Amino acid sequence: MTDKITIAIDAMGGDNSPSKNIEGLSIFLRKNKKVENIHFNLFGKEKDIRVYLNKFKINDKNIKIFNCENIVSDEETPLTAIKNSKNTSMWNSINSQLINNADITLSAGNTGVLLVISRMLLKTIEKVSKPALAALWPSKKGSIVVLDLGANIECDENNLVDFSELGSALYKSIFPKEKPKVSLLNIGSEEIKGTDSIKKAYSKLKEISKIGDFDFNGYIEGNKILEGDTNVIVSDGFTGNIALKTAEGTAKFITDSLKESLLENIFSRISLLFSYFALKKFKNKLDPRKFNGAIFLGLKGPVVKSHGGTDAIGFYHSIDLCYKIVKGNLMNRIQENLSHLNEK
Amino acid sequence: MTDKITIAIDAMGGDNSPSKNIEGLSIFLRKNKKVENIHFNLFGKEKDIRVYLNKFKINDKNIKIFNCENIVSDEETPLTAIKNSKNTSMWNSINSQLINNADITLSAGNTGVLLVISRMLLKTIEKVSKPALAALWPSKKGSIVVLDLGANIECDENNLVDFSELGSALYKSIFPKEKPKVSLLNIGSEEIKGTDSIKKAYSKLKEISKIGDFDFNGYIEGNKILEGDTNVIVSDGFTGNIALKTAEGTAKFITDSLKESLLENIFSRISLLFSYFALKKFKNKLDPRKFNGAIFLGLKGPVVKSHGGTDAIGFYHSIDLCYKIVKGNLMNRIQENLSHLNEK
Repeated sequence: MTDKITIAIDAMGGDNSPSKNIEGLSIFLRKNKKVENIHFNLFGKEKDIRVYLNKFKINDKNIKIFNCENIVSDEETPLTAIKNSKNTSMWNSINSQLINNADITLSAGNTGVLLVISRMLLKTIEKVSKPALAALWPSKKGSIVVLDLGANIECDENNLVDFSELGSALYKSIFPKEKPKVSLLNIGSEEIKGTDSIKKAYSKLKEISKIGDFDFNGYIEGNKILEGDTNVIVSDGFTGNIALKTAEGTAKFITDSLKESLLENIFSRISLLFSYFALKKFKNKLDPRKFNGAIFLGLKGPVVKSHGGTDAIGFYHSIDLCYKIVKGNLMNRIQENLSHLNEK
Repeated sequence: MTDKITIAIDAMGGDNSPSKNIEGLSIFLRKNKKVENIHFNLFGKEKDIRVYLNKFKINDKNIKIFNCENIVSDEETPLTAIKNSKNTSMWNSINSQLINNADITLSAGNTGVLLVISRMLLKTIEKVSKPALAALWPSKKGSIVVLDLGANIECDENNLVDFSELGSALYKSIFPKEKPKVSLLNIGSEEIKGTDSIKKAYSKLKEISKIGDFDFNGYIEGNKILEGDTNVIVSDGFTGNIALKTAEGTAKFITDSLKESLLENIFSRISLLFSYFALKKFKNKLDPRKFNGAIFLGLKGPVVKSHGGTDAIGFYHSIDLCYKIVKGNLMNRIQENLSHLNEK
């Protein structure tokens, strides 16, 4: 990475695009007025993009528009994606890392297709067995990294070891001062528990942890993830996806139940007047838009997937994530971790 | 089942036993004064049990004490359990189904050992490929059944089909008026998603659902579990355990954050005066003690595992669960479901 950072954005992906994508960009630019040398390559229908650049008063010399008339639809399947999605805004935004020297790509479009095209165009890093989808989660002690969240349904011990290296590189790129603690998601904390792959990964990670890229904290159970005592949680993509969505569903269930209770009678409604700021802060702290953006790790370039349904604030947070990742030298950190792995 | 119901209780399992176990029993007896013909076989140190029967003023002619001096320790592993745990309170309470005609066994002791002894003494029902651990969860639309929660780390399609029959029998025994809707826990709702076992189970369940024991609702993702649109959620034990614990951890994280926010300043503290009853009701609705008790299904007799760390109220709820299960004819319903499966 040079000091110049270029973020390629698929302006057409997700609900309410390109409006929310461009509005998200305007929030980012407002919040980062003093930061120099961030460039944006925007991919999509140029006419539409210009309408929203005007609407949100973006007049930045560092923005380039690349006109693409075609868009990947939500119905497109990964099976036919490579044939059908050539020259779409998604395809070209990923390809931008190869031909326009962009450092990272962001899209809120069809996830399955994004993974397939990213893999094909950017290619998997030689030493990585499988790329993985990672995300930041809130916890009692700050953000943590969780992976794989669904890129790989079945994983062996080597995949889990690679995810540990990739996840700790991601953590270090965002929190450069910390040495990450890595744990394997399992159904018990004793060494003998779990599937064969997990037990083998445990032994390998105990050895690899001596190299010093991260500290290996052993197994972690689902109920301890959000305690925040460990910074990187590693799992196969099936289990990680179930854990992610179960956590989302539980959070929604509880906050909905709370809302219902607090609107129930006149007294509880009065209480809302007094607790307004406290509840706002509570809501703000756990706002899922702050954690919007899954990172596809293990390819020769990073790709960030924003939630399709998020709004401009959520999209802003995923732009910010792209910026932090590139600024934090993610790709170099991955190479560094992997080179240690090879020495072993 | 005759009209007489006998519940065998391991009085020594779990923290603070036998005090909480006997106090839980006293709560049950107080709440079920009018119910006749419920008998209890209590297993443990007779002297200790009598102290607490006196303390909690239980003087019931339907209680029998079976003295056992030995207790399964928390450190005992499933590997050596069969050798070491003979004639413990846990062992004898399970064996009571064989020699004292108890209908069900309840213990708050060591889970791994309980599963091993139960399996050995009660034996798996012939038509069942693997027994499974099930529990009731709260949802937006009432209680749901989730299984397997950790008895089997790896499961094939036949196991998942059996779990569907076992889980829907359990649901019907507790909610006799409803025809259960069954879903398979997966990482997407499309038919092509998931592992091979899940996809094969999907096809089988679509067919079996025509028999009429339950309606098959297809796949369900983690974020939809608590919506309550489906009554029985089926999963392998590894994934189910991760989902259960992640849900627990998320619930704790959110309620802790809420508590912290509401105690933050003088206004939010005042708000608590007004919202006291609403928040109490909210807390009460989601009180995990109400959902205390995992049911080991697929053996020739049912075994309920109470949380070791629960209190008397939690233990009362697991006694109540035992009562409901036997009253609802669980074992007959399982046999009925399995016989249909066989006709197929």
